[in-house]
Amino acid sequence: MFAKPHLKLTLEGAQALLEAAVVKAEQIGVPECIAIVDDGGHLLAFARMDGARTLSVETARRKAATAASTARPTGGIAADVDTKLALATDGKLTNLKGGLPVVVDGKVVGGIGVGSGTGEQDLEVATAAIAAAVPQLRS
Amino acid sequence: MFAKPHLKLTLEGAQALLEAAVVKAEQIGVPECIAIVDDGGHLLAFARMDGARTLSVETARRKAATAASTARPTGGIAADVDTKLALATDGKLTNLKGGLPVVVDGKVVGGIGVGSGTGEQDLEVATAAIAAAVPQLRS
Amino acid sequence: MFAKPHLKLTLEGAQALLEAAVVKAEQIGVPECIAIVDDGGHLLAFARMDGARTLSVETARRKAATAASTARPTGGIAADVDTKLALATDGKLTNLKGGLPVVVDGKVVGGIGVGSGTGEQDLEVATAAIAAAVPQLRS
Amino acid sequence: MFAKPHLKLTLEGAQALLEAAVVKAEQIGVPECIAIVDDGGHLLAFARMDGARTLSVETARRKAATAASTARPTGGIAADVDTKLALATDGKLTNLKGGLPVVVDGKVVGGIGVGSGTGEQDLEVATAAIAAAVPQLRS
Repeated sequence: MFAKPHLKLTLEGAQALLEAAVVKAEQIGVPECIAIVDDGGHLLAFARMDGARTLSVETARRKAATAASTARPTGGIAADVDTKLALATDGKLTNLKGGLPVVVDGKVVGGIGVGSGTGEQDLEVATAAIAAAVPQLRS
Repeated sequence: MFAKPHLKLTLEGAQALLEAAVVKAEQIGVPECIAIVDDGGHLLAFARMDGARTLSVETARRKAATAASTARPTGGIAADVDTKLALATDGKLTNLKGGLPVVVDGKVVGGIGVGSGTGEQDLEVATAAIAAAVPQLRS
Repeated sequence: MFAKPHLKLTLEGAQALLEAAVVKAEQIGVPECIAIVDDGGHLLAFARMDGARTLSVETARRKAATAASTARPTGGIAADVDTKLALATDGKLTNLKGGLPVVVDGKVVGGIGVGSGTGEQDLEVATAAIAAAVPQLRS
Repeated sequence: MFAKPHLKLTLEGAQALLEAAVVKAEQIGVPECIAIVDDGGHLLAFARMDGARTLSVETARRKAATAASTARPTGGIAADVDTKLALATDGKLTNLKGGLPVVVDGKVVGGIGVGSGTGEQDLEVATAAIAAAVPQLRS
């Protein structure tokens, strides 16, 4: 088979995730950087909330891209391997918490990455965004 | 004076610019990457419309940051200087058309950068976004 | 719509393109580097034929990724813009000839990039590969 | 002696290694990125199996290049040295498991690097490829 059926995350979908993440971040009172990427790790939608760290723009993006590539939450790589992986990818693969894959109909269509809070806060915001925005569109 | 009053572009302002840009891009039928940065060149809001080029994510961002830093539209640097400036900034300063400063009450508060169309289309979208979204914020 | 139907280039498809390119390169007697990428510009399959240039490994890859992102053959960007685009993408967007998008059922699923010959030879090999490998799978 | 006899890994040899690696990866049910490089660390052949991680394209390549350069399996550098070596080579030397030198008649002619599985799975695939493809080339 030359090419197989897949799904492509739309800007509409990415913005739904972004909005849901902002709502959650406001609820817990933590300004966040939120990045949504497609399955190739390329940015689709982004927001830096007032007060969020400028240096988290990039960590949020890399968390999203890492989750999209690995198809699992960021932060779970063994401690003896994660620095090696980061160095071997010029820092693109990050093991910071706060990245989740976006899965629709069993296919990874992208990733969400949240940064500027603690790892736990970032993950909480990403989790809430997935829960609020993704399920309503599953078949 | 140790520090002086300034204006800081908010996420709300950045998103107003982003939405106005998307509206214009849809009107002219050109999917675009649109980046809004603050006065430090750091990303505030971003959207890649369906069909826009992944390689334009970065050019849109750099156009926005260049406009914010230079306080003028991108694309106007003399031909014998622009490559030198690009090389001396590792490509961060770009002379591609499609970047405009965001000016409020005479202060540069950020930049908008648009990429994926022709330079003229990109500039048209950026211009329309500034016209639609910025005036309402002026005092 | 959160996500829309798309197609994903398989390794089988990428290898069919690669083999067809090698056949053509052998016919014209020009050793080539041949890269096949997916729609996100990520490498799927690659071959450097005996005698092809090591520095063309990277140009072939970038031609493929540029064609996949721009949805058109590389080499057609106006002379006053192409260096600016290269600089603004850290050299990722290249205007060297020899890159073609891989289109199936109207969808860009990836790109092929060929390098080590002249631009015309590289393009001839890429064109032959697309002609030989892609049509047989169109619906 | 100004220059001495050497052996040069061919594309045919590289593709034999690649195919043997794919067979093993399919047997153990782990989609992998597989890179074959020459003795200069330059890519000769590559395949990303369907489902393998895009971020492993680069780690597989670096494992192969590291094994070719060091003439030994990757992953064996002492823990207090490996980060220093990675930093001093801009990440080019990696101590991730999954890279093996390709040795013919006592000469290192290249390297194979496998990535996307666990380090053990990657190494198992690389080992099987060497065992299946290299002996037949020995004199």
